Order: sequence, then C-alpha cells, then structure tokens
Amino acid sequence: MSESFKRVVLAYSGGLDTSVIVKWLQVTYGCEVVTFTADLGQGEELEPARAKAELMGIKPEHIYIDDLREEFVRDFIFPMMRANARYEGDYLLGTSIARPLISKRLVEIAAETGADAVAHGATGKGNDQVRFELSAYALNPDIKVIAPWREWDLASRTALIEFAEKHQIPVPKDKRGESPFSTDANLLHTSSEGKVLEDPWEETPDYVYSRTVNPEDAPDTPEYITIDFAKGDGIALNGEAMSPATLLAALNDLGRKHGIGRLDLVENRYVGMKSRGMYETPGGEIYARAHRGIESITLDRGAAHLKDELMPKYAELIYNGFWFSPEREMLQAAIDHSQEKVDGTVRLKLYKGNASVVGRKSPNSLYSERHVTFEDDAGAYDQKDAAGFIKLNALRLKLLAKRDR
Amino acid sequence: MSESFKRVVLAYSGGLDTSVIVKWLQVTYGCEVVTFTADLGQGEELEPARAKAELMGIKPEHIYIDDLREEFVRDFIFPMMRANARYEGDYLLGTSIARPLISKRLVEIAAETGADAVAHGATGKGNDQVRFELSAYALNPDIKVIAPWREWDLASRTALIEFAEKHQIPVPKDKRGESPFSTDANLLHTSSEGKVLEDPWEETPDYVYSRTVNPEDAPDTPEYITIDFAKGDGIALNGEAMSPATLLAALNDLGRKHGIGRLDLVENRYVGMKSRGMYETPGGEIYARAHRGIESITLDRGAAHLKDELMPKYAELIYNGFWFSPEREMLQAAIDHSQEKVDGTVRLKLYKGNASVVGRKSPNSLYSERHVTFEDDAGAYDQKDAAGFIKLNALRLKLLAKRDR
Amino acid sequence: MSESFKRVVLAYSGGLDTSVIVKWLQVTYGCEVVTFTADLGQGEELEPARAKAELMGIKPEHIYIDDLREEFVRDFIFPMMRANARYEGDYLLGTSIARPLISKRLVEIAAETGADAVAHGATGKGNDQVRFELSAYALNPDIKVIAPWREWDLASRTALIEFAEKHQIPVPKDKRGESPFSTDANLLHTSSEGKVLEDPWEETPDYVYSRTVNPEDAPDTPEYITIDFAKGDGIALNGEAMSPATLLAALNDLGRKHGIGRLDLVENRYVGMKSRGMYETPGGEIYARAHRGIESITLDRGAAHLKDELMPKYAELIYNGFWFSPEREMLQAAIDHSQEKVDGTVRLKLYKGNASVVGRKSPNSLYSERHVTFEDDAGAYDQKDAAGFIKLNALRLKLLAKRDR
Amino acid sequence: MSESFKRVVLAYSGGLDTSVIVKWLQVTYGCEVVTFTADLGQGEELEPARAKAELMGIKPEHIYIDDLREEFVRDFIFPMMRANARYEGDYLLGTSIARPLISKRLVEIAAETGADAVAHGATGKGNDQVRFELSAYALNPDIKVIAPWREWDLASRTALIEFAEKHQIPVPKDKRGESPFSTDANLLHTSSEGKVLEDPWEETPDYVYSRTVNPEDAPDTPEYITIDFAKGDGIALNGEAMSPATLLAALNDLGRKHGIGRLDLVENRYVGMKSRGMYETPGGEIYARAHRGIESITLDRGAAHLKDELMPKYAELIYNGFWFSPEREMLQAAIDHSQEKVDGTVRLKLYKGNASVVGRKSPNSLYSERHVTFEDDAGAYDQKDAAGFIKLNALRLKLLAKRDR
Repeated sequence: MSESFKRVVLAYSGGLDTSVIVKWLQVTYGCEVVTFTADLGQGEELEPARAKAELMGIKPEHIYIDDLREEFVRDFIFPMMRANARYEGDYLLGTSIARPLISKRLVEIAAETGADAVAHGATGKGNDQVRFELSAYALNPDIKVIAPWREWDLASRTALIEFAEKHQIPVPKDKRGESPFSTDANLLHTSSEGKVLEDPWEETPDYVYSRTVNPEDAPDTPEYITIDFAKGDGIALNGEAMSPATLLAALNDLGRKHGIGRLDLVENRYVGMKSRGMYETPGGEIYARAHRGIESITLDRGAAHLKDELMPKYAELIYNGFWFSPEREMLQAAIDHSQEKVDGTVRLKLYKGNASVVGRKSPNSLYSERHVTFEDDAGAYDQKDAAGFIKLNALRLKLLAKRDR
Repeated sequence: MSESFKRVVLAYSGGLDTSVIVKWLQVTYGCEVVTFTADLGQGEELEPARAKAELMGIKPEHIYIDDLREEFVRDFIFPMMRANARYEGDYLLGTSIARPLISKRLVEIAAETGADAVAHGATGKGNDQVRFELSAYALNPDIKVIAPWREWDLASRTALIEFAEKHQIPVPKDKRGESPFSTDANLLHTSSEGKVLEDPWEETPDYVYSRTVNPEDAPDTPEYITIDFAKGDGIALNGEAMSPATLLAALNDLGRKHGIGRLDLVENRYVGMKSRGMYETPGGEIYARAHRGIESITLDRGAAHLKDELMPKYAELIYNGFWFSPEREMLQAAIDHSQEKVDGTVRLKLYKGNASVVGRKSPNSLYSERHVTFEDDAGAYDQKDAAGFIKLNALRLKLLAKRDR
Repeated sequence: MSESFKRVVLAYSGGLDTSVIVKWLQVTYGCEVVTFTADLGQGEELEPARAKAELMGIKPEHIYIDDLREEFVRDFIFPMMRANARYEGDYLLGTSIARPLISKRLVEIAAETGADAVAHGATGKGNDQVRFELSAYALNPDIKVIAPWREWDLASRTALIEFAEKHQIPVPKDKRGESPFSTDANLLHTSSEGKVLEDPWEETPDYVYSRTVNPEDAPDTPEYITIDFAKGDGIALNGEAMSPATLLAALNDLGRKHGIGRLDLVENRYVGMKSRGMYETPGGEIYARAHRGIESITLDRGAAHLKDELMPKYAELIYNGFWFSPEREMLQAAIDHSQEKVDGTVRLKLYKGNASVVGRKSPNSLYSERHVTFEDDAGAYDQKDAAGFIKLNALRLKLLAKRDR
Repeated sequence: MSESFKRVVLAYSGGLDTSVIVKWLQVTYGCEVVTFTADLGQGEELEPARAKAELMGIKPEHIYIDDLREEFVRDFIFPMMRANARYEGDYLLGTSIARPLISKRLVEIAAETGADAVAHGATGKGNDQVRFELSAYALNPDIKVIAPWREWDLASRTALIEFAEKHQIPVPKDKRGESPFSTDANLLHTSSEGKVLEDPWEETPDYVYSRTVNPEDAPDTPEYITIDFAKGDGIALNGEAMSPATLLAALNDLGRKHGIGRLDLVENRYVGMKSRGMYETPGGEIYARAHRGIESITLDRGAAHLKDELMPKYAELIYNGFWFSPEREMLQAAIDHSQEKVDGTVRLKLYKGNASVVGRKSPNSLYSERHVTFEDDAGAYDQKDAAGFIKLNALRLKLLAKRDR
C-alpha cells in the first residue's frame, strides 16, 4: 500500500459491506472518510445511514445524503431513453446509467471537502468498477480511486464478518450467511445476479423478484394508460403533468402491478466474461415502448433509421462506463437533435407482463392518411412515380446481373 | 401501352383481384398468361386456384402450383432469423421476406415457359411492388415486369367489380363491398393494414386478428417448451426433430394458443410515407427470442455486438426489397460465419402474450461459472488485472480532462 | 404538358444551354422567367448574364445575380470539411455541396417573386437533378420543379442549336460543335466528365485540366505553408487572418501552382450507373489534409474514430442530395460537437502534386510527450497497467479458444 | 517472479535488445530459450541471428529461422488490402498486420518444442505488446506470455548495456548511445518513432527515411505501370505474373524510386495515448490505390459503400490487435464475398511521391458507356424514370417540410 490519502469520499449505502469499507479505509490508510449516500430511488430509508456513519466516527459535516432522483431521471435516464438504448437487444441499462451520476457527486464532494480520493464498493469482476472509475477520471483526472474489493484480503464472507466483528461493526443476522444472490436497485430497475442465478439453464426462482408481481398473479383485466411527451421526454401520465422522477415512479407502480419488465439475460460484461442477470424494469419498460411509439409518428425515416444504427454503439458506451466521453456526447448531440418535434400522446395497454402500444397521436405527426389510404388520395401520391423509383433503384442490380450471368 | 408481350407469368392467388389481373393482361396485351400460385403456408387451399385458372382459359401446363414452404423457411426465414432482424426495432419482416422467393419462382417459370414478362398484384403505394421488381430484375435483368395496379384505370372497387362482371369473373358475395382492411399471410405472419387501421390513435379492433387468440383468452397456465438449435437454426421442438417448416408451423400453433406475437406498428415505407400495420407473428416471435437466447451463451461479445450493429442495415435491406443484392449477401456471409457454434437448447415460458427465455444450455457455451462466480474462482480471474484495464481505458479521458478543465 | 406555371425561377448561367431553357420555358409554359445567377467562385464574369437575360425579355427586377461565395464556404464547404467527407474514399464532393445552396436561393427567390416553380439545367442521367430537387422540395414542399432536359425533345446538340437559332439566341462559334467533355466549376473544384473521358482505361488528356498545372510543370522547390484553425474551421493562411472564401481562394492559387488535387475517378452515381469523372480540387485537397492534421492532435480517439465511422454515410448523404435532411443534420450535430477544441496550426509542404502535413501544434493538444516518450516519463504511465489491460481484453478470446480447440 | 517456466519461445531479431532478453530470460527464469527469427521482408540477413543465438547457448534445434514472406503477404497483407484498410484515414497498418503472424509462429513453435511460454521484445507503452499477446492467447488460451520490458528494471539504455556487458553480450558500437529514433520494418513498411520525432510540430528529418528517396530526388519523368488483379488480389506487374511477396517487393522498388508512400502521422494508440510516427509504405501505397482502382469498376455500389462503412472498424480491429477475433473474421467473410469478381488491370502513373490511377479495365466491368454516355444511349436508360425516383425519395422530406413550416 504505497499510496497514502488524507481524506476519501466513499459511496456509502449504510449496509454491512460499505460499513466494512469505511473501517478498512480508516485502518488501512489512516485517512478521514467522507460518506456519500445517494437517493436514486432504490426504495430504502437513507437516514439510518447517517446514524451508522456517525457511529463509525464520520464527522457530521462529512456525511452527505443527497436526493438525486430528479437529476437521475432528467439528466441520465431520459437522455438515454431518447436513444431507445438497449444493450444486447434487451437490457435497459438500469445499473449502468446510475454509476456516472454517483461518480459525478463523489468527485464534486471530493472537491468540496478537499478529499484526495474516492472509493466504491464494486468488485473486481464486474462492470461497475469500470463505470465508477472511468467517470471519476473523466471528471477529475487527478482524483485517486480506491477499490477495496480489488485490494484487500477479505476474500470470503467469513473474513469480512470477522473484520466487522473485530472492529465493532454491527452485523445484522440476515447478513451472517451468504446471500443467495446480490442486487442493485434504483428508480429505473432492480438487478439480481450471482449464486442461485449462476446456472443459466435454471429458471430464476420466484423469490428473486422484488419489483414486479408474477404476471400470473397480475390483474385479469387490462389497464389502459396514456403518456404525453414533449421534445422526446415524458411529461404526463393519463393527462396529469409530472416531473421526470414522479412520472417514472408512477410507471413503476403500474409496471409492478401488471408484472411488466422482467428480463432474464445472459450478457457480455466489459471485463470479458459472460454473466447471467435478472432485471426488473417495470416503469422503464413501459416508458421505452411508449417512446418508440411516439417516435413512430413524429420522426422521419432518415432520423429513425440513423438512430437505430447508432443505438447499439450508444448502449455499449453506457454499459462499458463511457457516459462521460466525447463519443457518447457526440451521439447524444445527434440523438437530441432528432427529438425537437417528438411531442404527443401514446396509449398503452398493460396486461400480465405485456405493455403494448395501441394508439399514438401528435400535433407533429408525419403520418398522413391522405398518402397512405387505400381510398382515393386526391392526388397526394402518383403511383406512376413508383415505376421510375423502382427502375432506378434496380439499375445497378440489373447491370450486375447482366455481368454475372 | 407501347410494349407488347407474348406470355406473362403472374403471381396468382386465385382470389378476385388476381383473377381480374389475369383477364386484364389477356385483354390489354393479348398475351398468354401463366399462373403461379405458391404455398408459403398462408393456410389456404391452393387447388381451387387451378380450377379458376382453367376457367379463365389458362393452359393446364401453364398453371403452376408449388409448395415452397420448406424452401421459404430454410433459405429465407432462417437466414434472416440468424441476423435477429427486426425492422424499426420490432417488425419481424414477415411480408418482406416472402417477396424475393415469389419473384425467384416467377423468373424461373418465365424461363421454363418462354415468357417475356412477369406480373404481380401489388399496388403502387406499397413496398411489395419494390420487393417483387427489384428481385425480378436482379435475377433476370432482361425480364419485363407488369404492375397492373400502377397501369390500369380500375381505381375504385366498383370499377374492379364491373370489370370482373363484364368478363364473367365470379365475384364472391363477401368481395362485393369494401374489405375493412387488407391482409397478407404466410407461414411467418399475417399482416393487416388499411381502412379501419388507418387512424393510428384507434386501437386495432379485435376482429382484425386471425392468427392468435387474444392474450386475455389464452390459457391461464404457462406452458414451457424447448427449442434445439444447430449452427444457428432451429432443429427440434421439445426434443423432437423437425424440418424447418414443420418447426415453424408447430411454433405458430403454440403462439396462437398463447396470444403471442401481436404487433401494432406505425412504420416507414420505402416509398416515403408512414403506414400503420398490425402484424401477427406467433411462431416467429417465439423463435426470434429463442435464437437470441441460444446466441447469448454461444456467441462471443465481439461477434454479438458486431451483429447488433449490422442488424438495422440488414433489416432495412430486406424491408426495402434488396434481398438479392451484393450488400445483403455480404452481411449474410458475416452473419453466417458467426453461427458455426450456435448450438444448444433454449427453454421458454409461454404465457398470455409473453414468450420469455428462462433457460439456455449448449455444448458450446462460453458462459463460465468459474469466471463469473462470487465464490472462489480458483484463480481463473485475477481481480488486480481490472485495475490496469481501467487505467489504460481511462488514459485518454484523463488527458482530455486535463486539457479541458 | 398538363401543368401550367405563371412564373418560374431558373438557375441561369448565361451560357447557351440555360439560355435555350429560358426560351423553352417561355414558349412551352407561357410563363415569366426569373433568372438566378450565382457567383460560387466558378471564375466567370457574371454581368454578361444580366445582358443576355435582358435580351431574352427578362424583367430587370427578375434578374438575380448573387455573390454567394462566403456563404458557400462558411455554411456548406466548411461544415462538410469538419467531417473529413470523401465520397468513395476520394471525392471531395465539390459539385454535390454546391447544389443545395443553389436550390436554397431558388426557393427563396421564388418566394420573393411569387413564382410557382423553379427550374434547373441538369440532365436526367446525373446526380445533380436529384440534388437540386430534393433540396427544393425539402425547403418548400409545394414548390414545383421543372427539369427541361427530362421533358423536352431537344435530344441532340443539333436540335438544341436549331431551337436556339429559331428563337434568335446567339450561338457562340465554339458551342456549335460537341464539347469534348462537360464541366462544372465553383470555388471548391472543377469537375469534368463525358465524351473523351468515357473510356475509363484511357488516361485523361492534359487539356481537360483547367485548375491545376501538371505536377511535372510545377515548381521544383517545395513551398511550406501554415493554416490556422479555430473550432474546426480554417481562419488564417501563413498567419494572415482570412475570411472562409478568401482562404479557400488563396489555397486554390497554391494548389494550382503545385499541381495539387487532381483526381481521376470512376464513381457510383445515385441514379444507378457508374461514371468516370476528373476532379480538380486544389485548395480543397490542401485544406482537407490540414484539417485531419489539426484533428490528429486535438481530437480524442473516441471522437476521431466515431467520426471516421460516420463519415461514409455522411458523404453519401451529401453526394445523393440529402443535405437538407434530418439525418444529415443529426450527423452534423455530432460532428460539430467534436470540433469545439479543434484549434491550432498545421504546417504543410506543397510539392508537385503532394500536400503533406509536416507539423501541427495547438493550445488544445492532447499529444503528451510525457506519456509517449521513450525517455523517463516521471511516472506518467505505469507499464504494468498494460498487463491487466491485455489480460482483460484477452479474456473473451481465451474462453473462445478453450471452447473451440 | 512467482511464475516459473521451463522453456520459452522468444521472438528474436538477433539485435542487442532481444539478445539481452535471451540472457535475461535464462537468468531470471532459469529456463531454456527457443529463438524464433522471422523473415518478413525486413531486409536484413537472418543467418547472423543463428550464430548469435548459438553463442548464447541456444540449442541448434531450438533456433528457428523462417521465411514467412509469402505467407505474410498472401494470408495477412492481401486480405487486409481487400478491405482498403487505413487506420485513422491514412495508416496502412504495416506493423499491426505483422504481429499476429509472428504470434502464430511463436505459438506453433511452443507446441512443437514443448515450451510453456512465449516472449516478445515490445515495450509496455505501445500497441505491439497488445497485438502479440491477444494473438497468442487467441491461438492458445493456456500459453503464458512474458513481456520483459514490463517486468525488468533495465529502465535506461545504460542499465541495458551494463546488463549486456556483464553477461558477455557483444554491444555494437552504434548501439552504445541512444538511437535517435526506433524503427520496425517488414515487406509492407518501415515505421519510425520516438526521440527526434517526438515533437509533432517538427518536420521529420530526412535521415529518418530509409525506404524511399525524397520525392525531390526522384526521377523527373513519370513511370507508368500496370497491376493485374484476380479475385481482389494482385497477380501481375506490367503483365508479368508474380507471387504475392514478389509482387509487393517489386512495387516496393518502384515506390522507393519515386518517393511514394511517406506518411507523417499523429495517431491514437490503443493503450490510450497519442504518438507521432513516420511511415514508409512504398509498394503498399501503390497497391492500395490500385486495389481501389480495380474495385471502382468491378464492385457494385451497394458492396462498395458497405465496405467503406465497415472499413474503419476493420482497421481499428487490426490496429488494436484483434486479427484473431470472431468479429474480424466476420468482417473478412463479408469483404471476401465482395471480391469474387474483382478482376482486371489498373494502370498507374508514378511520379515524385504520387501514385495515381489513370486507367482501369476488367472483363467484369460494371461500367457501362451505354448508360452513362452523353450521346444517344439507344434506350438503355429512360430519363423520365428519374422524375419518379426523385419524387419518391423526396416524399418524406416534403411531409417533414409541410409539418415544420
């Protein structure tokens, strides 16, 4: 441990693991610890974290508890949703999108408190360490990052608990044994992985799910809702204006009730291995479908297809931790440019795991009944034009066929 | 009508519209007509088409009725499914993928019968005319294509029926009035569009659906199935080996029963307008999800992400009618190269509109519990490597941050 | 000729061909003609066009002669150069980029003069008709476009000259015979095609070149220059501040003198055929190389590679005439976002056809001698990090190799 | 040094640095060393390497000297040239493409000799370490790789020479001081970097160039050559059939004479920093231009544009060391599919740094004078088709313009 630090800002949940990290940092580096606990909508009381931090000797002015829910949805989730981002075809990036915001605050608090390092509780096998650290370095190239799980020798649960007991850290009874899986939660999703989920042939046990009812237990009657959009962002549910975080929370309630947004996935981690995860993104799944729905009538084909082509790279960048990178910002500039007229209302049917777009309307609609109709179109479209269109599109294929026969 | 033809091969369904076309071709061009009726799994008796053709004076040796179902699935649908192709994020391209096969047979039959032109019954506003004609020209650059809907003056339903009656073509009672929507069906899907579907704000009426039960009427108990894959193609259902078309048909039955594969979409046509369609792709939806499932454990990340990046372009090419084009074939070569080891079994849960992958296994799995485990991994992975990995990935971001602060 | 027009704005060069079009429009449509002659730096006197127009009965207030050089370079060429756009690897898009500006003015003048149509002198075989018309329709969806070359029956040179003589249009002696090739010129380039260039195996005859000396006749001594950039655009030559058009004109002089920017190309037209063209882009070639040079030290890798990936599509859009399209604008937004810090100075060596970057410096340089040096780097870079970086990048390849052996 | 090895295969040049590595491996690991010296056309005698290796105690059967020139050009350079690969717009990847072949032989020799590790002489700051190691791991996931420059403490030139003298390794006089730059050479190129090249504002001194004459000293008379291609690969020079390596060597002679292929570049390394390099690729530059020339008449637009879009990613993969990766192989499959008809002859003019395509012909040419001619085309192309083509391409832009005005 050749480096030394005088003050370290830790992403602190108040749970056992990050409490052990507080102590380990104090013991190992002899440094002051600043704790930062973020409300990202994970659905837990945060004030207990303050008491625990105080108990571990953190100075009151070094205990940060921030409600970041609106910023999270407005500046991170919504911009991402404008891109229709799904990693590897399905994953709505619920964990990935939260990490840069946490790092942003860690770096800001480090500046405010004169800390020379930040620390996080992510392991050395996962993507989160990459996301935390790339974001931190991109925002402050001189910051030091401490990743205790890559450094310490508390390799087993037993060692961790021994360390905790040795240092008078309370160990809740249910944390003594191995957890059957590990989770991460925020306003967008809950993810679960590890242990009982490690065999990708085995179905995810029902007790793993915490954010959605089983579709089989969902109401037998469909529910219809509307979401209003302005410039590509959701602004109202069933006609009622809502802030970003309020809207997503309300959609989460609807998604939970109707069993929407469960995903069982084997994905490719940036660190090189495959992992199997279970995701619940109830409100996000509804929102993502609604966004595509409103785009379908307000985006021109050229814009829509370019977005589809750029999306996999955009999603990969977020997944890999490159939110704060020039290339993600360039793609965002392109995407945001396309959303200027993405206004209107989408109607969805929610029913036992399904969130289906059943209607969409917009003051900016590009859908033209006059052009598409099977009825008389009053000259809007001259079918004879299609002949020339096809002929010229075919020309290169004909020249090719003549050569190759 | 400056051109003249001596013999024309028509894509003939046996229905009223293409019967009118037979007569119109005979009358307009004074040509012989060769009828070609394909069984693509649309679920209709084809032999009546023979009788009708004979009635209209087609020579018996000029009546072609071909069962193309296996070729359709093996050489068109399965290759497309290897790419996970979805147009504009959702549409499984059920109509688009059938057109090149029909054109291929039209051109072949033209060669066999010494015909100098082919004809189709697609309108001048849609994509199908483009798909038929680009394929035909790509396969025989000297072929002529007749598109009666772009040429004739039978602009209204009334005019069409008058023409039929004038030429003794039987008009079934249910064809006298306007159909409330128009459909296209084959083994992969049924699409519906027009009339009652033209307002994208209005929910699709229930009577439009023909291939799936309403999820609300589907069984209350989930059904679990397995699909086996070899080299990226489905080969067995629930352990029972099946030919491509048999497998897809069996999946269609399952999808119908569980209300799977309904899609209500506003899409961008190649000819420049938006249209609203309703698609039912029961077996295809199940198959597409299963294919992604088996890829998730057998494809390397590099291959998987490249496929995701190429997919939108690949899907657009098929949608636009460029199946027989060098660029589609190049993409197919890349995609097929990736499927060599895509073997194994996927388990799915079917329930009221949902087809969820719940398990996957493969003799070629790249998923390594040893690497991913939270337990001791016996040295498979050195967490310290992650520090260097992150440092070097961060280097350019740090240099940037130093410059820009 | 079912349509009728009361006033038509014509892109008018003052040459024989567009003079014939003036008369043909008057005769055919009985309409008033408004002439628009743009100075795009083609190097011709424009005032003679005024006299000719007057001779043909155009009202003085309907004769527009505009100097668009600064707008052309500032708002069209420079944005395109920010993207490093080259069509099919080489072509700097000199003709393509001028068309949207001409259409923009045509449409504006139509609004000012109450005209109901615009007209251009491009043939039905080329790309320019597409570029003119797509731009016009994108800017005014109700505008009508007249393309006389697609409509009239003046198919041969002889017919054209007969028409001219019949209508008292003066025919210069050197226009009586067939021109050995056709050209287009503006501040960015001169293109030549047709006739003597039609056999792609034959070397372009020397007399075709008009904008550059033969490299063999260029000075035997190299000349060194510097170009300064700010936010991705050129602002000074050899330290002397210049407006966009002045800078490009000065670079054209340098390029001409040193025989720089000749290109003999077989390209793929949007209308489906291949054509062989000869391009001279003296200043543009120097500028394009300089721009890449300044980017090489000021752009981060992520931004630079994303730009390289987007470029072919961007160039294709401009070539095909989609300057005024949502997707070109989206790409431009991404590209422009990357240019914020593209400031500095590039030094080039000009010598007999070569324009080589030999030095670059910037207040925003990301090049770090400290990191890259073979000498002691004072701890800027820890070579041990590379081991972890490689290990984690190799992990997926190792898992693959284990499976596949 | 916790690991131990019994036998290590070293990429051995016979120079001072790799001789030091031989001894360092013997001393540090107590292992046997197998030396592998490859003739990749670097233009040096290889037999002296044998004598030096013997002097250091390598067993005769453990000294491998292989002529890999034909394999290098046929299986690595030519496939890459089929893609028109240039990294960051310019660099022809001369060093990058050699590394996977060296690694392939290292791994093969390890298998033949029962070695448990391979070693290379690349530093910890560059790309070559990544290329060597990714290739080695991809070909044998169990191989160990030793990178002495990342491990030892011979950080300065002085320390290295002291080590050499201590171990009786002869130190040539010209290797005592610091070299003013470092080079890598093979049949495709010579690269130089470091020291005198580290300031990107300073012009590369003339003495750095070794493979080309200064264009100013090149012949005053142009030289014309032809290259014949079959299936995308060069097969003859001036009509004389040649093997791949013979052809490239002959082009190198021509390029040297005419001062072709010099490139002064600041590039982005995969390890995160920018570096400035000087490349000489005399024959490769000529070949690359010729290949694009023959493609210009034999590739369809769809294939050509897809290749252009894929190229940046393909080049990046090679640059970053992912030659042996599924995604590079997928792209290669697509590219190779396009080359089936890339046959014919290209004529080039070589003159003082310029290699210009001046003619191209092919039995498979897609260029059609009949279509493109300004003369009467005998009905090959109907200009009226262009009207419909433009109208339908404009439709979406018109709908957009109507909405947005």
